[in-house]
Amino acid sequence: MATDKQERRQKFEGVFAKLRDDLVDRLKGENMPPESVEWYRRNLDFNVPGGKLNRGMSVVDSVEILRGRGLTEDEYFQAALLGWCIELVGFMRVLVFVVKRSDSQRQLQAFFLVSDDMMDHSITRRGQPCWYRVEGVGLLAINDAFMLEGAIYLLLKTHFREEPYYVHLLELFHDTTFQTEMGQLVDLITAPEDRIDLSQFSLKKHAFIVQYKTAYYSFYLSVALAMRVCGVPESYEVHGQTVRPYEVALSILLPLGEYFQIQDDFLDYAGTPEQIGKIGTDIVDNKCSWCVNVALAAATPEQRAVLDANYGRKDAAKEAKVKEVYEAIGLRERYRVYEEEVKTRLDGLIASVPEPEGNVDGGVLKRGVFTAFLNKIYKRTK
Amino acid sequence: MATDKQERRQKFEGVFAKLRDDLVDRLKGENMPPESVEWYRRNLDFNVPGGKLNRGMSVVDSVEILRGRGLTEDEYFQAALLGWCIELVGFMRVLVFVVKRSDSQRQLQAFFLVSDDMMDHSITRRGQPCWYRVEGVGLLAINDAFMLEGAIYLLLKTHFREEPYYVHLLELFHDTTFQTEMGQLVDLITAPEDRIDLSQFSLKKHAFIVQYKTAYYSFYLSVALAMRVCGVPESYEVHGQTVRPYEVALSILLPLGEYFQIQDDFLDYAGTPEQIGKIGTDIVDNKCSWCVNVALAAATPEQRAVLDANYGRKDAAKEAKVKEVYEAIGLRERYRVYEEEVKTRLDGLIASVPEPEGNVDGGVLKRGVFTAFLNKIYKRTK
Repeated sequence: MATDKQERRQKFEGVFAKLRDDLVDRLKGENMPPESVEWYRRNLDFNVPGGKLNRGMSVVDSVEILRGRGLTEDEYFQAALLGWCIELVGFMRVLVFVVKRSDSQRQLQAFFLVSDDMMDHSITRRGQPCWYRVEGVGLLAINDAFMLEGAIYLLLKTHFREEPYYVHLLELFHDTTFQTEMGQLVDLITAPEDRIDLSQFSLKKHAFIVQYKTAYYSFYLSVALAMRVCGVPESYEVHGQTVRPYEVALSILLPLGEYFQIQDDFLDYAGTPEQIGKIGTDIVDNKCSWCVNVALAAATPEQRAVLDANYGRKDAAKEAKVKEVYEAIGLRERYRVYEEEVKTRLDGLIASVPEPEGNVDGGVLKRGVFTAFLNKIYKRTK
Repeated sequence: MATDKQERRQKFEGVFAKLRDDLVDRLKGENMPPESVEWYRRNLDFNVPGGKLNRGMSVVDSVEILRGRGLTEDEYFQAALLGWCIELVGFMRVLVFVVKRSDSQRQLQAFFLVSDDMMDHSITRRGQPCWYRVEGVGLLAINDAFMLEGAIYLLLKTHFREEPYYVHLLELFHDTTFQTEMGQLVDLITAPEDRIDLSQFSLKKHAFIVQYKTAYYSFYLSVALAMRVCGVPESYEVHGQTVRPYEVALSILLPLGEYFQIQDDFLDYAGTPEQIGKIGTDIVDNKCSWCVNVALAAATPEQRAVLDANYGRKDAAKEAKVKEVYEAIGLRERYRVYEEEVKTRLDGLIASVPEPEGNVDGGVLKRGVFTAFLNKIYKRTK
């Protein structure tokens, strides 16, 4: 099973190598000076693969489910290409992180991006140090980020231009990118690392940030792309019922994405380092996490004062005080109740998706797309 | 005449106010928290208008020429909207500048973007200080830049989705944005401010940077957009001759854009502060300017040594030494010869564009589009 997973990943990574070579050849063909072509190749190589690739690979999974059969080589390539385009969107935000990190590192006069937390963000690849250096990192990194985004549209143009759904692919990437940026803006304004103000937080704001920053691009985008390449139309009839499949997908994948992020927030607090592969830092980093928002909503005035005085500080004793409040308000039990409630809700939503009889090859939405996601997520501990 | 120009500008700016309100209403409609909506409104207001707006307004000019008549209100609005989308592309690069500036300002522990050179880049508007502050400026500015770019595709989707040329508009913006970023990358690698190496420079590299960083987006983009809204097809016949109008436009507008930038480089050196409204700093800033590339190509070994020892230094005496070499190699005369040569070449290219008889309303390319640009540029001194 582990080997199967590894093989799937290797096959998916093989497509990246081809896409990167195509992009590099494209620049060479425009007579770009060799050192700049090489820079772009390294930009792609260091910054795009190396993560978990869940988002990208789920396009392939979804296409297989929608088609109800194994894919031809061409079909696999198309699905994987779209998956890599999602990975390219994702990386814009990691580069933002590079710039942020470069700012603080610069103050320390020491700059190699090899710390553990950077590894989590795939800035290093197989232990290689990052190629960004302090000189001009801001400018080059920003331009590099824009050029990763640009690769999406170059790839789509090269491989999908003649498809009737080409414009839908473009719009999906435009819309999702903008939604992600909207979420990012609200997050940056609500929870800046250097100005702590818990009155800015609320479960409502948390829901907005999660939906826009994560759910659209980590969940809806991959399914909607898969639906487009499988020829799923705007609407169709099943058993005399009109289905609007993109609206249906959104109505399930947004709460599913929210569930995923709330889990992530909870595991940052409650997961052991062995489980999550790191030590949670949301409290000291002043993150607008589900945990603190639940605590704020449930806190007595005394508990609220403790949170105000201790949240977001780089201080283990203060972090411990926040954790005491989390335990006192029963955060673990609240999470358990939430998880059961959302699981029941999602099961119900998925069961109500109208499906035609028998195995259909593309053209309609299938419940299996959602259950595949839900099964990966439900009660995960890492 | 000055009033006419002012009126044209005011009318164009009026369209921006409407577009900004539409974008803001869109975010409100998605229940974005009010302080984030307000942040985006200010992002648009401070960073988009305020420049010379030549690129944006030239879409309107070109549409008028291609139609051979005044525009209806709807036609004007469409053309101006596309013009504002070009201004949105342009601003990505200015925000890069903000980040760069914020880095160096930060080191000075004093940060208000009110210096004169920032004014030139329209970071201040009517003398108001810039709203960026040192805290988190890198992260917010980058996200803001992405959200300005995102506005392009939101606006195109809202206003052009039903047009048969919608996908062409999207591709023009994708292609041009990527080309601009390619030029930016080569420029950043070739001429970093903090590492002087004139062996990296060449007239060939200068030509690449200028074509990609400036000519595509400042010249070709506005004309190609105008051609699309005027229904100019991929090819047509005139007097039995097949015309490929987009290739024709490119073959004229790329050298025209190069001419414009070479002029800009030359004026940075030879223009008086009264003419160009600033003191040229290309020499001290280690810019990959046409001037230094001509000097490098013509220099004796002794002159080359002077350039190597003095270019790119923040030192008036060294700057003066570079200027001595420029005079010794006859830069002014070389520029005069270049300008006459390129003018003759462009006149010839423009005269050879096949045009049907009589006044045609859209559907074909017209020489007037190019002469309008050339007349604005030829022998300009500011």
